[in-house]
Amino acid sequence: MSTLMNTPRLFARMKAEGLDAVVATAPENVTYTSGFWAMSQWIRRGPQAYVLTPAEGKGEQSVIASTGTLDLIADQGVDVEDVRRYGFFAIESDALCIDHDERDKRVSKLLEREDPGDAVAALVSAIKDRGMESATIAVDEMGIIPQYLEKLVAALPKAKIKRAAETFRYVRTVKTPEEVTRLRRSARVAEMSIDAALAVAKVGATERQLANAFHGKTIMEGGMPVLGVICTGPRSALSSGQPTDRKLEHGDVIRFDVGGRVDHYRADISRIAVLGEASGKVKTYHRGIRAGLLRGHEIIKPGAKCADVFNDIVETVRRNGVPHYKRNHVGHGIGLDGYDAPNITPGSPEVFEEGMVICCETPYYEMGFAGLQVEDMLHVTKDGVESLMSTSSELRIV
Amino acid sequence: MSTLMNTPRLFARMKAEGLDAVVATAPENVTYTSGFWAMSQWIRRGPQAYVLTPAEGKGEQSVIASTGTLDLIADQGVDVEDVRRYGFFAIESDALCIDHDERDKRVSKLLEREDPGDAVAALVSAIKDRGMESATIAVDEMGIIPQYLEKLVAALPKAKIKRAAETFRYVRTVKTPEEVTRLRRSARVAEMSIDAALAVAKVGATERQLANAFHGKTIMEGGMPVLGVICTGPRSALSSGQPTDRKLEHGDVIRFDVGGRVDHYRADISRIAVLGEASGKVKTYHRGIRAGLLRGHEIIKPGAKCADVFNDIVETVRRNGVPHYKRNHVGHGIGLDGYDAPNITPGSPEVFEEGMVICCETPYYEMGFAGLQVEDMLHVTKDGVESLMSTSSELRIV
Repeated sequence: MSTLMNTPRLFARMKAEGLDAVVATAPENVTYTSGFWAMSQWIRRGPQAYVLTPAEGKGEQSVIASTGTLDLIADQGVDVEDVRRYGFFAIESDALCIDHDERDKRVSKLLEREDPGDAVAALVSAIKDRGMESATIAVDEMGIIPQYLEKLVAALPKAKIKRAAETFRYVRTVKTPEEVTRLRRSARVAEMSIDAALAVAKVGATERQLANAFHGKTIMEGGMPVLGVICTGPRSALSSGQPTDRKLEHGDVIRFDVGGRVDHYRADISRIAVLGEASGKVKTYHRGIRAGLLRGHEIIKPGAKCADVFNDIVETVRRNGVPHYKRNHVGHGIGLDGYDAPNITPGSPEVFEEGMVICCETPYYEMGFAGLQVEDMLHVTKDGVESLMSTSSELRIV
Repeated sequence: MSTLMNTPRLFARMKAEGLDAVVATAPENVTYTSGFWAMSQWIRRGPQAYVLTPAEGKGEQSVIASTGTLDLIADQGVDVEDVRRYGFFAIESDALCIDHDERDKRVSKLLEREDPGDAVAALVSAIKDRGMESATIAVDEMGIIPQYLEKLVAALPKAKIKRAAETFRYVRTVKTPEEVTRLRRSARVAEMSIDAALAVAKVGATERQLANAFHGKTIMEGGMPVLGVICTGPRSALSSGQPTDRKLEHGDVIRFDVGGRVDHYRADISRIAVLGEASGKVKTYHRGIRAGLLRGHEIIKPGAKCADVFNDIVETVRRNGVPHYKRNHVGHGIGLDGYDAPNITPGSPEVFEEGMVICCETPYYEMGFAGLQVEDMLHVTKDGVESLMSTSSELRIV
């Protein structure tokens, strides 16, 4: 089993839902359940890779992979034994080579399996080999092409096919130790990347120069860039604003809402800096939103309700400097996806659990003024949270 | 209309298919039809943004955007007037600011529209406002959440809802001048990034160091990293292999199958270098696959059949040094997606047309030996191709 997957939580949930098997189809869930990072499905929509996971005691997992990605299965040491390939892809083997390594030997062995033609045919054969023609199977609806889902349903007329995206989303909320390790590193890389961007901040520097320094550092630390909202001055009020050639001026707010991927795990953090000197309004409002974030550090713990935490954090911001503060949410989970469950919203029915990793945030956007935002990644422990951050969320003067 | 969209081709195709409107839902198609780059749907699966495009003469386009992405609509100057927002997202406006710019004014105006609750409700209102309750509407099935598609179908019981992904894929094959400009730049950035990687190639340098130099250069040139297959020595035979700490040795093959995004447009190119001295087998096989690629330059032209081009290129490789050469395809289109139509396969019914941009490639993977690959981006002109490359596909000795 993948060290990324919370197997007991998955099995318990499958039992509660009466599922005989689940099928991962979206890239996050394929990587989650098997450790298999199937490049093509991560960089495009359309390429199909699946992982079939039977309920506890009902058999071994199966990975369905295009022949062209078998090299990744072997190179990544995916420990699922039953790998079923599909599609023609030419891979030769040097007959004169006398010391093929284990990776090449595994690829050669996987290539020996018959090609059933397409991903659905391979999945159906895996299901039938487990005697699951009449089973209740939940299929992740976010990665499978609709036409393929129809083919699957048609090929298994006696099976009960349900949707699995919410099941996977629920299971992924409570992280394994390996996931926390990766998230910690991803958060750290994002912080170092902010430092790198601020190192080039000066009057006349552009948003793009800051962003290049940010993403460049992420690359150098082994990450891949994803989220790069880096805006300055009045542009900082654009919640999703992208870097431009706008030049930094004295007194400008610099807002970072940023984070890449490290070992496939996301970061999503926010920090505010000011070039030179902060206005009274910036100081006051920043103190307000930061009070909300720090309140989150105090009250997020196992058993706390997301809706209660939302109300408490918003009230804290209002009492501490931003009396008109309004938000749709003040945080969310993070993992392979940048927005994992739970959501810290007023209407959320969710409750914090030990092992969750949460992005707690209190953004404030005011056109004509600025955008201010602080966001920390927090690991929910037995009786509170452990911050994954190494830098302070204080207003930074550069 | 977006300068990215081939509007005459879309309208002609809609007429041929009897469509009254098409709805873009996947990020590529939303950006294509409107110029709107809705960040959240590009970096995650799930966030919903749509573009409704009525058939010629049947009304104006409509963009459906979450309230939190309205800033991007305004900042990107999306020229679709009918923008319908959905969902609560707090954006304040500084009442004391006397010189709100055009961007802020547009956001304020867009915020005044009523929030219908969710993306489907907003889309349904746009469809009804055009009197299209009983129309034939093709909806891109690759970006809309299945539950939302069900809601849409239920809300429009008299409409005929079809799938649109193939329609968009067909339309996107023939590029507009703006698309070609972006693809040219993207290809150039990929080439410069290969140069940057090779500049650090020496005995003892790792694959990761080469990859960092590659992606770092892409960032500095304004691109975002996507595809980074950079492998050395026997690892070059891994078709999708990812960079490791393997150290370069004298005589190693270095294979690049790489390309990021520039202004949202992909590059996908391949080059081979050898550290020090190439073996006779590397030279012979590289000459063979390169002969195939150069044959592609000669024979790809409007009217040529993809299947014929496939056979000719494969035969050329076989005659020129790799007699056992086999492939599933020797090229594909490229644009907002890394694999646009057409596909150069033995079974393809497609024909080349002026304005297509094609990645022509002849990869060869042999475990225990190496992977060799050359891939150029080619713009199909009136009577042949214009290469978008500035560097030669010759074997490079570093």
